[in-house]
Amino acid sequence: MRALHLSDQLQLLEACPRPIPAAGEALIRVSLAGVCATDLAVLRGYNTFQGVLGHEFVGVVAEAPEAAWIGQRVVGEINCGCGQCHRCHNGHPAHCAQRTVPGIRGRDGVFADYCLLPLSNLHPLPATIPDQAAVFVEPLAAALRITQQTHIHPGETVALIGDGRLGLLVAHVLALTGCDLLVVGHHPEHWSTLHAAGISTCLEHTLPAGYTAETVVECSGGPTGLQRALQLVRSGGRLILKSTFPEQTPINLAELVVREIRLIGSRCGPFPAAIHLLQQQRIPVEALITACYPLTQAVQAMEHAGQKGTLKILIQP
Amino acid sequence: MRALHLSDQLQLLEACPRPIPAAGEALIRVSLAGVCATDLAVLRGYNTFQGVLGHEFVGVVAEAPEAAWIGQRVVGEINCGCGQCHRCHNGHPAHCAQRTVPGIRGRDGVFADYCLLPLSNLHPLPATIPDQAAVFVEPLAAALRITQQTHIHPGETVALIGDGRLGLLVAHVLALTGCDLLVVGHHPEHWSTLHAAGISTCLEHTLPAGYTAETVVECSGGPTGLQRALQLVRSGGRLILKSTFPEQTPINLAELVVREIRLIGSRCGPFPAAIHLLQQQRIPVEALITACYPLTQAVQAMEHAGQKGTLKILIQP
Repeated sequence: MRALHLSDQLQLLEACPRPIPAAGEALIRVSLAGVCATDLAVLRGYNTFQGVLGHEFVGVVAEAPEAAWIGQRVVGEINCGCGQCHRCHNGHPAHCAQRTVPGIRGRDGVFADYCLLPLSNLHPLPATIPDQAAVFVEPLAAALRITQQTHIHPGETVALIGDGRLGLLVAHVLALTGCDLLVVGHHPEHWSTLHAAGISTCLEHTLPAGYTAETVVECSGGPTGLQRALQLVRSGGRLILKSTFPEQTPINLAELVVREIRLIGSRCGPFPAAIHLLQQQRIPVEALITACYPLTQAVQAMEHAGQKGTLKILIQP
Repeated sequence: MRALHLSDQLQLLEACPRPIPAAGEALIRVSLAGVCATDLAVLRGYNTFQGVLGHEFVGVVAEAPEAAWIGQRVVGEINCGCGQCHRCHNGHPAHCAQRTVPGIRGRDGVFADYCLLPLSNLHPLPATIPDQAAVFVEPLAAALRITQQTHIHPGETVALIGDGRLGLLVAHVLALTGCDLLVVGHHPEHWSTLHAAGISTCLEHTLPAGYTAETVVECSGGPTGLQRALQLVRSGGRLILKSTFPEQTPINLAELVVREIRLIGSRCGPFPAAIHLLQQQRIPVEALITACYPLTQAVQAMEHAGQKGTLKILIQP
């Protein structure tokens, strides 16, 4: 099979062996995959991962230990826990110390004709969700992790820093709470779906003087985004971190204590809720697609995804 | 009156004018006051405060706009809000941007014969709580802020870093929840009240290999305490910051995101709950007193409080 492989260099391998499922795993034929910022970070050396890249996908089960799965159109949760530890037993494989994650940690990814995942990670898809929407289930679930972790109240003032791939998904999820949301970004060309959903936007330098928010969500991942977020969050408020930051970031901890700010790290979220919202067509994910590349042009797809202002790049085997 | 005054130098002034209450304020004769780490930080330049130091006290109302208060033995909350802003109207004067705080921010403190506070900041004391215990209401309330902000479950694994003044109070408060508490410290000579309350202790270098906790409370304020806290907290867990840290502290924010850790800044807490617990004699505060100095020796008292391993130093006018 073909696969986008990272070792010393990134290259499309034309004749990889098709992967062989371990006990409990399914072989999935990938229909469509999506590139996210984590893939770009892995490319820059994050986690020192080597192997097939990619973790966002929709596909069809080709082989499985349970016959009922074969032919099912599925998406798959990315954290593969050991199944033995306290974390796995309590339903938190995303925090299993031994976990593997396709394309990120100890497991080949989905930018390939086929991939493997444990059956227990798979979710069947309703026929009403097209592949172009289903490929957003993983990042949409990550956005929903915020409202799973914290209660955002109707009417609450919320600022979202960042209007990229993840920021836009998070904006649409936050707007569902009825909060008073302001998206602070740099890309007015991305704002049409926000305005259609009644979400306010502004450029960073046009922030109203004295504006503050009960909750600030940092989705820019940029070095100035965190400082801006700390400026905007009210005392007693919450600062939710969705982006991964450079390893050591200086932060004023005395300010966190005196102003009683809660810093909340947020990562992977609930697939069933994401599937539910896509089925209801509540999140305009397909408008976030910038381009779709065939798998044969996966290297070019990654280059395009890394360009400033690009939204979702898809890869189709 | 006499007052411990900080300007270019720290000195005991023998003949300060007695302060004159503003509208709504009471004049309080200070019976006993306590030195805390924040006073020592102010001495080192924190907040660039100048004036009379001190904010922990018990006293008797000498003058008040409402006659019923005169002669009342009281403790006083330290955050004096503007009374006009959104924060004050919602019961959070501790986060009023215009607030004054005795001995810390824009208001003379309590290391003096008399001090001033708004009547609305005062809490009458039951006669059953002696001054030596009542002087701990403010720091005990700060410890109780933790269980006011977050739900610590019975049986939950909790590590507390630091066995100084604040750490010991926090330990006794946490133990009331029925959590599985381990205090990690450097001062076995401070541990007798902990052991009497059935609280486990260990030195930092004797931490059991692989030990982790759902919740970690940082009370050491030291540069290594935060790193240790991050090592001990489990993924998905909480790290509660009670100490003020040097202004810019490098922290691995990517780890906070990937491990979904919540960093919770925690400051001032509920006085009624602290008074209630002292009335029930649930917290052995008097065992934490290292020494009591007369106000005339307040400069020496501050020196003593700054020595490593010192617990509570009291100042008696």
